[in-house]
Amino acid sequence: MNRDIDTLVSSTIRVLSAEIIQEANSGHPGLPLGMADCANILWTKILKHYPDDPNWINRDRFILSAGHGSALLYTLLHLAGYKLEREELKHFRQLGSRTAGHPEYGMIEGIETTTGPLGQGFANGIGMALSAKIIADRFNRPGYEIFGDHYIYGIVSDGDLMEGISYEAASFAGHLGLGNILYLYDSNNITIEGNTDLTFSDDVRKRFESFGWHLQEIDGHNFAEIEEAVQKAREVKDTPSLVICRTIIGKGSPNKKNTSKVHGAPLGEEEIGLMKEELGWKEEEKFTIPESVLTHFEERKISLKEKYSEWQQKFSEWSEKYPALRNEYEAFMNNKIPAALELELMDKVSKEPKATRALSGEILQILADKVPSLLGGSADLHPSNNTFLKNYSSISKGDFSGKNLHFGIREHAMGGILNGMALYGGLLPYGATFLVFSDYLRPAVRLASIMKLPVTYVFTHDSVFVGEDGPTHQPVEHINALRTIPNLYVLRPADGVECALSWSCALKKEISPAALILTRQKTYPVNMEADPDMADKFMKGAYIVYEPEGTPEAVIAATGSELSVAVDAAKLMEKNIKCRVVSVPCVELFMEQSDSYRKQLFPDIPKVIVEAGTCFGWGDVLPGELLKINIESFGRSGKAGDLAEYYGYTGEKVAKKISDWLA
Amino acid sequence: MNRDIDTLVSSTIRVLSAEIIQEANSGHPGLPLGMADCANILWTKILKHYPDDPNWINRDRFILSAGHGSALLYTLLHLAGYKLEREELKHFRQLGSRTAGHPEYGMIEGIETTTGPLGQGFANGIGMALSAKIIADRFNRPGYEIFGDHYIYGIVSDGDLMEGISYEAASFAGHLGLGNILYLYDSNNITIEGNTDLTFSDDVRKRFESFGWHLQEIDGHNFAEIEEAVQKAREVKDTPSLVICRTIIGKGSPNKKNTSKVHGAPLGEEEIGLMKEELGWKEEEKFTIPESVLTHFEERKISLKEKYSEWQQKFSEWSEKYPALRNEYEAFMNNKIPAALELELMDKVSKEPKATRALSGEILQILADKVPSLLGGSADLHPSNNTFLKNYSSISKGDFSGKNLHFGIREHAMGGILNGMALYGGLLPYGATFLVFSDYLRPAVRLASIMKLPVTYVFTHDSVFVGEDGPTHQPVEHINALRTIPNLYVLRPADGVECALSWSCALKKEISPAALILTRQKTYPVNMEADPDMADKFMKGAYIVYEPEGTPEAVIAATGSELSVAVDAAKLMEKNIKCRVVSVPCVELFMEQSDSYRKQLFPDIPKVIVEAGTCFGWGDVLPGELLKINIESFGRSGKAGDLAEYYGYTGEKVAKKISDWLA
Repeated sequence: MNRDIDTLVSSTIRVLSAEIIQEANSGHPGLPLGMADCANILWTKILKHYPDDPNWINRDRFILSAGHGSALLYTLLHLAGYKLEREELKHFRQLGSRTAGHPEYGMIEGIETTTGPLGQGFANGIGMALSAKIIADRFNRPGYEIFGDHYIYGIVSDGDLMEGISYEAASFAGHLGLGNILYLYDSNNITIEGNTDLTFSDDVRKRFESFGWHLQEIDGHNFAEIEEAVQKAREVKDTPSLVICRTIIGKGSPNKKNTSKVHGAPLGEEEIGLMKEELGWKEEEKFTIPESVLTHFEERKISLKEKYSEWQQKFSEWSEKYPALRNEYEAFMNNKIPAALELELMDKVSKEPKATRALSGEILQILADKVPSLLGGSADLHPSNNTFLKNYSSISKGDFSGKNLHFGIREHAMGGILNGMALYGGLLPYGATFLVFSDYLRPAVRLASIMKLPVTYVFTHDSVFVGEDGPTHQPVEHINALRTIPNLYVLRPADGVECALSWSCALKKEISPAALILTRQKTYPVNMEADPDMADKFMKGAYIVYEPEGTPEAVIAATGSELSVAVDAAKLMEKNIKCRVVSVPCVELFMEQSDSYRKQLFPDIPKVIVEAGTCFGWGDVLPGELLKINIESFGRSGKAGDLAEYYGYTGEKVAKKISDWLA
Repeated sequence: MNRDIDTLVSSTIRVLSAEIIQEANSGHPGLPLGMADCANILWTKILKHYPDDPNWINRDRFILSAGHGSALLYTLLHLAGYKLEREELKHFRQLGSRTAGHPEYGMIEGIETTTGPLGQGFANGIGMALSAKIIADRFNRPGYEIFGDHYIYGIVSDGDLMEGISYEAASFAGHLGLGNILYLYDSNNITIEGNTDLTFSDDVRKRFESFGWHLQEIDGHNFAEIEEAVQKAREVKDTPSLVICRTIIGKGSPNKKNTSKVHGAPLGEEEIGLMKEELGWKEEEKFTIPESVLTHFEERKISLKEKYSEWQQKFSEWSEKYPALRNEYEAFMNNKIPAALELELMDKVSKEPKATRALSGEILQILADKVPSLLGGSADLHPSNNTFLKNYSSISKGDFSGKNLHFGIREHAMGGILNGMALYGGLLPYGATFLVFSDYLRPAVRLASIMKLPVTYVFTHDSVFVGEDGPTHQPVEHINALRTIPNLYVLRPADGVECALSWSCALKKEISPAALILTRQKTYPVNMEADPDMADKFMKGAYIVYEPEGTPEAVIAATGSELSVAVDAAKLMEKNIKCRVVSVPCVELFMEQSDSYRKQLFPDIPKVIVEAGTCFGWGDVLPGELLKINIESFGRSGKAGDLAEYYGYTGEKVAKKISDWLA
């Protein structure tokens, strides 16, 4: 087989990547040069995609989990014919450019996910593979295996494999036998600090085999071995595949290859010159792609177009044959939510005193039927999180017809997998754990927030009122810590009606991602009816729930389980002090409102916040004279009722604190 | 061998644990019953400790990583003779009781670490094992192998093994060949959601072998097998050991064993009755320990006392023979810091414009010599974090004489290992990564904060001024998210002098744990001298750095790299508006000051905060009229200088914003 063109393509990838980074005088050449050969084979011979329809549902996904190698991805997207001009390559890592330091989802078509924080892309791919299986289950019909008929490819690095999230995700993927995953591991033995020998001596083959993966090990610079290994892995249908590619970091750079120097610093003009010499590079001008390489990619695109057109043909036939299914498919793809969902949920949810986790659980049962694209699971806490969809089965190896996922005690992977599921398209995934363990998946929540993904987190056991489990299980800082994350909507409902609205709100595209903060303990309802105006009021993030006659002298703001306590307190004080009570289920929505709306609820009179947590940040939400009824230190093990007395979260104690403060 | 007494001890552990939980009507009987036999053998035949001197440096450590099984630990501590009365067992999980829901470090002697959040104890043990090796290296002398001459034992659960942190920590421990670790894995195939088959199918043996661990698999209810396996594992000196103990969760409970029902709910009086019947339990009264069991433990304590006394004898001899070493040992154990350290550091540190990470690096080189117990490392970023101690070697398998740790790209394990190192005693460990990745180890930071451990985090690259790497690498919410954690001191120095004081401050016992927040980019010094009063001012968390003549009309607060920008702005405005500038290197210290001190710095005039982040929470720190010069959304990829212009962090732009606001 003549590999001349392959060699030239690899050289093009190397030279272009190095030039991009040199022009920016910033970036990571090690990976693009080291993985040029693998990427080349993948993108010119394997990857099924169509650059003119980057959202084609049945495309292969390519994830550069080691996002610091972004120059490689931009080079590939440019060569493959995505909308990315040569000029933009020259503005790599500059303010305002789309060729950002790390690949950013939404910035350029063809970027499947934002990567950079190590291990995240690895887990995203698992989520995509899972979504592919689920979408295939929902929409494929005999003779029309047109959905999920593709692979999730990824390039993963030593760094990805050292991160805990990748172990968790690999274990999960192995358990479910996700055979549509094919990761190429760039095994180059070099990290920032030097040789991986410094700290990494895993037997990677054995480790992945222990998770049930299919393993191969190849020379990552041998075209035939790469192609053969990928083809072989594709044939393994019932387990994920990892191909260990032994590579030389920075290959092509005569003096810097195989050293940690090449990992994260530009090669320098001189070294690039030497590299070009070594590669026999003939182009004089920078950023030039040899004609034959251009032709090679154009030919590839033509053959991809054939595959794409064939699929579209099949899809049209399927649409005609199954018009109802096609409609359902559109609803999935557009994350469509039934109209008037809010009212129905508000109407059906219990109005008795219950834990908001239980109320959320009731609502989820309704949503499971009403919103077919909604599905999710818990990190081994569904009996506590109330997230199991009772009329649906669990997803398991070989059977993706269910709606319940068992993430295992793997919160971080859950976060990354949810992101991947949402990125795939079509599904509205949720994931649950205790609020205190939101810390375990925080890096993934941050990425969901950066990408504005339609992911819903169900965080239950939301305060010291977790009770007996004590400080390790009692969040005090978490609600506010989550509120610090841009784009994330933190919803803390107080009762059934607010739970209904929190869920319907969380499923909206604009409110993405969203975190539902729910109690373990019983709460007492403040809203007793399915008031049609409630939805609008709720969407403003705050609204008045109690107003004594006359002009208010103070306003008490409260959230979640503390709302009914605040109302009790207001009633107890009413004879002497008129206190308005405002429910603030969502600080982020409230802060989006006009100054005048905010002033309308909170005029220039003393304010009080009652929230069972640190309340750090409420000074920003409610500027001016503010009394915080808060908990500034870690909690204590004890019965929830005893803790309510101890921390002063009873109507009487709150009333006394406020009266004393105002006196 | 007559195992009658062993059987009775196991029954005692089972009955007592079940009664403790029943009395509280809350808790997790599954693990105490399932691991009673293993715990029994470990505590009556293996564990080297001495309850009357619970801080004996050479004791074995026992970690219940699966902290929800706390009733087991309390039972063992009570039986073994620690200061824990029977009455206290009856107040399990009640407010004010020391027998908290999960074991809390410092609450009862013999609790080696606070556990509950899964995987953390696993990593803590690795840190303890590492400390043992280091302390042994520092203080053992020929013929006096008296330090580190012990093991770290732990009980770990399915949940621990599913968490990413345990994979990371196991990989690290395997790499360093920490043969002093011996974990018993409670393999019972049951989690909260049901059978582990639902989501967990790792080949655990293979997985740990891939990390270089020594593996055995036994019947966790067969005394002989347990004892033999533990003895065998102890003989393996160069790799950590895992013993897979096949157990029946809730063993002893005739109707609930081997089901998820027994995991987290009391058995009920009736079932306890049936269990007692099955076990042939003869005691009528609750909470009664059979005489022969009491005797058994007393005899064990006597033999432990012998070992303890022998060691003390050796230790005395060693002290006499090596008096200087003994002094050094005391300095280690008391985390002693040289007097006047602040002045020396302030004096020696650069006064030129430099990144605070570089200034911190300079200081660390001095500290490495001055504070012998200080050591640490980075999660593969030392060239960026500037944390490598240049005159010292790296710690590696078999050689613990160095001071540099290579944690690998395993931030979460790093967090857990640092906690374990600090818990062991004698060392002042630090760990480093980018600030944005503080999220990866947040659950461990929280536990360090709960336990008030002397751990220092070095978080560099602290704002959008990271630059080209873009939003995934640019913290905007992290400084404030860390500030929400109780007990944690977040120090953001502005220049060399503040870096010196941040480090000397962070090494104090009262300021534990501490996080140093450092820039990637150059900062411009505000403090140019080693002013002896500076240390006191700094310890108040905030102090005036610039004061124009006349009465100030506004106060600008700033931290870190924004301090010099604030001073520039104040100078630019000086003709028209008199602005005081206050440096706030530590919000937590500032909030501990009296109202009058705070009012003194920030009187009732308009206030401005200049911090390159969300500034969420500054409304609480500086109540009243407040202008925030902040960044409320995720950052952008670009050069740091371009970003400073874009986000308005230049003297001119800040001055203009403030003037406009005040106009």
